[in-house]
Amino acid sequence: MKLADVNGMSHVAFVATLGGIFEHSPWVADRAYHARPFASVGALHDAMTRAVHEAPAAMQLALIRAHPELAGKAAGRGELTADSTTEQSGAGLTQCTPDEFARLAALNAAYNENFGFPFILAVKGRDRAAILREFARRVVRDREAEFEEALTQIARIARLRLDALFADG
Amino acid sequence: MKLADVNGMSHVAFVATLGGIFEHSPWVADRAYHARPFASVGALHDAMTRAVHEAPAAMQLALIRAHPELAGKAAGRGELTADSTTEQSGAGLTQCTPDEFARLAALNAAYNENFGFPFILAVKGRDRAAILREFARRVVRDREAEFEEALTQIARIARLRLDALFADG
Repeated sequence: MKLADVNGMSHVAFVATLGGIFEHSPWVADRAYHARPFASVGALHDAMTRAVHEAPAAMQLALIRAHPELAGKAAGRGELTADSTTEQSGAGLTQCTPDEFARLAALNAAYNENFGFPFILAVKGRDRAAILREFARRVVRDREAEFEEALTQIARIARLRLDALFADG
Repeated sequence: MKLADVNGMSHVAFVATLGGIFEHSPWVADRAYHARPFASVGALHDAMTRAVHEAPAAMQLALIRAHPELAGKAAGRGELTADSTTEQSGAGLTQCTPDEFARLAALNAAYNENFGFPFILAVKGRDRAAILREFARRVVRDREAEFEEALTQIARIARLRLDALFADG
């Protein structure tokens, strides 16, 4: 995919093409469309993250909740999006030891209980030990800080997905 | 809740209040906000369904996919929204016989396989036998007809949810 392709797309095609950059949330691409043409992948990413930050809190919360847990039940059942599957397996999360798996399950439960949304981390470049350390650090923070952190991590994940999409372009 | 309350709300409060009328899809309330004030619940419902019909197909598909299966795995795990739980149990779907449950599971699998999204039906006022008949009728139709039917059923579900929300108003 080339940036020029995206810049030349109709609204419907644009949302269909970029609708999965933010997990299950094509409304982000919808809101970013008006900012085209994009001079760079970074400019496209800026427009999409701006759309998230300008959205009402209820939409931001729905976006956060649209993400799967790390090595969670949905992953175990094979219900993740293709992107999430690649990201989680790339970080080795499909190869957890029983102990690591039990620790992640406990952390997922505690985090959801504390904040009402799943723990989100752009896992690329981190191994399981680093992910577990980061998870343990964040599970005890306050909800406002974690809400902001979730949006920051989602923006990072989106940038990695955009870079992969335009890697050949 | 009274319609006047909703008509007087900020954008953020409006989306927080009506964000769940369309399952996991607060962007519908977001898009309908500009049409306020609403003279009636019907006018509010019209504005919300218009927002769905004017949205790109990828957003309509994400809306459809945000719905749970009837008596499906998510229901069995207690993962439904409060509204979906009430709707499914009201239609007796939590009291299926083993045979009914097996038929629903087979229909859910076939429908998803055929169309790539879950079977959606506003179940209020239907018993399990009627739901199974309708499911068997629809599972063999074409995808375009079912895509439109899903949006029609979602609009009906939304109207029932709005009527319940404003029942005291």
